Amino acid sequence: MAVYTQVSDAQLAAFLGQYDIGRLVSCKGIAEGVENSNFLLQTEQGMFILTLYEKRVAAHDLPFFIGLMDHLAHKGFVCPLPVRMKNGDALGELSGRPAAIVTFLEGMGVKEPSADHCRMAGETLARLHLAGEEFAIRRKNALDPSGWRPLAQNAGARADAVEPGLAALIADEMAFHDAHWPTDLPTGVIHADFFKDNVFFLNDALSGVIDFYFACNDMFAYDLAITVNAWCFDGALRFESDKAKAMIEGYQSVRMLGDAEKLAFGTLCRGAALRFLLTRLNDWLDVPTGALVMPHDPKEFSERLRFFRDNSIDRLMGLV
Amino acid sequence: MAVYTQVSDAQLAAFLGQYDIGRLVSCKGIAEGVENSNFLLQTEQGMFILTLYEKRVAAHDLPFFIGLMDHLAHKGFVCPLPVRMKNGDALGELSGRPAAIVTFLEGMGVKEPSADHCRMAGETLARLHLAGEEFAIRRKNALDPSGWRPLAQNAGARADAVEPGLAALIADEMAFHDAHWPTDLPTGVIHADFFKDNVFFLNDALSGVIDFYFACNDMFAYDLAITVNAWCFDGALRFESDKAKAMIEGYQSVRMLGDAEKLAFGTLCRGAALRFLLTRLNDWLDVPTGALVMPHDPKEFSERLRFFRDNSIDRLMGLV
Repeated sequence: MAVYTQVSDAQLAAFLGQYDIGRLVSCKGIAEGVENSNFLLQTEQGMFILTLYEKRVAAHDLPFFIGLMDHLAHKGFVCPLPVRMKNGDALGELSGRPAAIVTFLEGMGVKEPSADHCRMAGETLARLHLAGEEFAIRRKNALDPSGWRPLAQNAGARADAVEPGLAALIADEMAFHDAHWPTDLPTGVIHADFFKDNVFFLNDALSGVIDFYFACNDMFAYDLAITVNAWCFDGALRFESDKAKAMIEGYQSVRMLGDAEKLAFGTLCRGAALRFLLTRLNDWLDVPTGALVMPHDPKEFSERLRFFRDNSIDRLMGLV
Repeated sequence: MAVYTQVSDAQLAAFLGQYDIGRLVSCKGIAEGVENSNFLLQTEQGMFILTLYEKRVAAHDLPFFIGLMDHLAHKGFVCPLPVRMKNGDALGELSGRPAAIVTFLEGMGVKEPSADHCRMAGETLARLHLAGEEFAIRRKNALDPSGWRPLAQNAGARADAVEPGLAALIADEMAFHDAHWPTDLPTGVIHADFFKDNVFFLNDALSGVIDFYFACNDMFAYDLAITVNAWCFDGALRFESDKAKAMIEGYQSVRMLGDAEKLAFGTLCRGAALRFLLTRLNDWLDVPTGALVMPHDPKEFSERLRFFRDNSIDRLMGLV
């Protein structure tokens, strides 16, 4: 949740003057997204989201993110559509930051999803994977195993202050993935952050997906593994196999997993847990300067990681 | 900017079930208000603001705040109207916090007001003072001079770490107000926080006033002095006499200031600067636990205080 950059009246007026979206009625900073500053704009034409991209988002990645939303929306995938300025550009500058306006999506994230919600999330994730085919720009996953290493090194022994034994767990897990991380699975555009707050429902139907700022090219099945991590544990961090089953069934109703993906799924779930453990641990140990968010507890993902180390999810799910 | 309390899906659904405002379409935490958690609700019937009252707002004051908005709105003053539940109550409970829903006001605060904006602000402040007559509930100003003393004591010598000489300035100013704070001026309901972000404009007309959570019974002219402090200095903290003149003229076009109010106005401006200096200084020195806002710089008000000590605003404005 955050508004990191303040926008002056004159700057906002000049920026909106580049668009053809009617006069501004209200503008409220919204507590959504931890990387960027977001504002809910109400104009005579309706509601929009204005995003100012802060330093943690690399400017050279923005054509990928904006272009991807545009591509997906035009493929019929329900996500925010970047609004073009009168000159045709979808990316501008406001208060010294890259900035874009996208359409507003109705609906809300569910905090306690049912198996049905998980099924719809799985279906929609697979649709995203198919809709992303033919998208021309490519972006490497900055948080693949090679991106985990500096995070693991930066935390180092300090991890044990968060949770005794955590440093050894991370070191062991890094070694495991050095040996076992799959390299031959089907890849394409993945969301990479398909968490519950990024998937909206309205009247119990899935109404759209937001926040493509971790999207990249990587393994489809890894995206599903991230999503199982995010949706299929209860508040006490107990794995909920009915939800995971429903999610995987939903996914496969749109895109079948191949044998190699099924076989690797346990490893991918461990990797996904490790990836979020590492970023949370680093934010926890070194709270970013000026952060206006409470850091997430890294233990939520060390617990998940331990679960996936101790349990063979591919067998649990009947995948192998 | 803040969302301090998380609300579960089930809690929100149960809470909204007590109202007759249609089905929920979206709910976004908004970065507005430093004391409470605020959410922008979109329902089939329109937009609303949901507020969860956090610990810094005393529960026993809520009937005053809610009742005042209700009273003012029914007097034709443009402010959020508390929405009543089916049972007639305007104050409920959500996630263990007192909570209320109010109507959404269109418009936005101006960050760089013109003299015309200041004139409208002055007019509207006077209208608020008149509309508050006959409001039955009373609330003492917790931040009057007797409320400043513990803040001054808590800061103590630490103030000098923020700005050399600040501790002596505060001590001297406290002694001045002990001797000179007026006690015989006209009183009534005041807003007490009529800052630029709490006064909305739409297409250059004043569209409404929000955030009544410092409102109380105190001197009308003190409310105007707070407002001059908030609106009539530029970004470099230079006093803008044209804006102050327009504001006071606007105020007097609705409610004339008496001679005693004019004579005391310089003292009231000093007191207003001191009041915001003290609260900001305390938040700066002792950042409240779990705060999700960057503390405001107390120097913005020590500068104003020095201006009002060095310049006779009542003469500057032609009041005496």
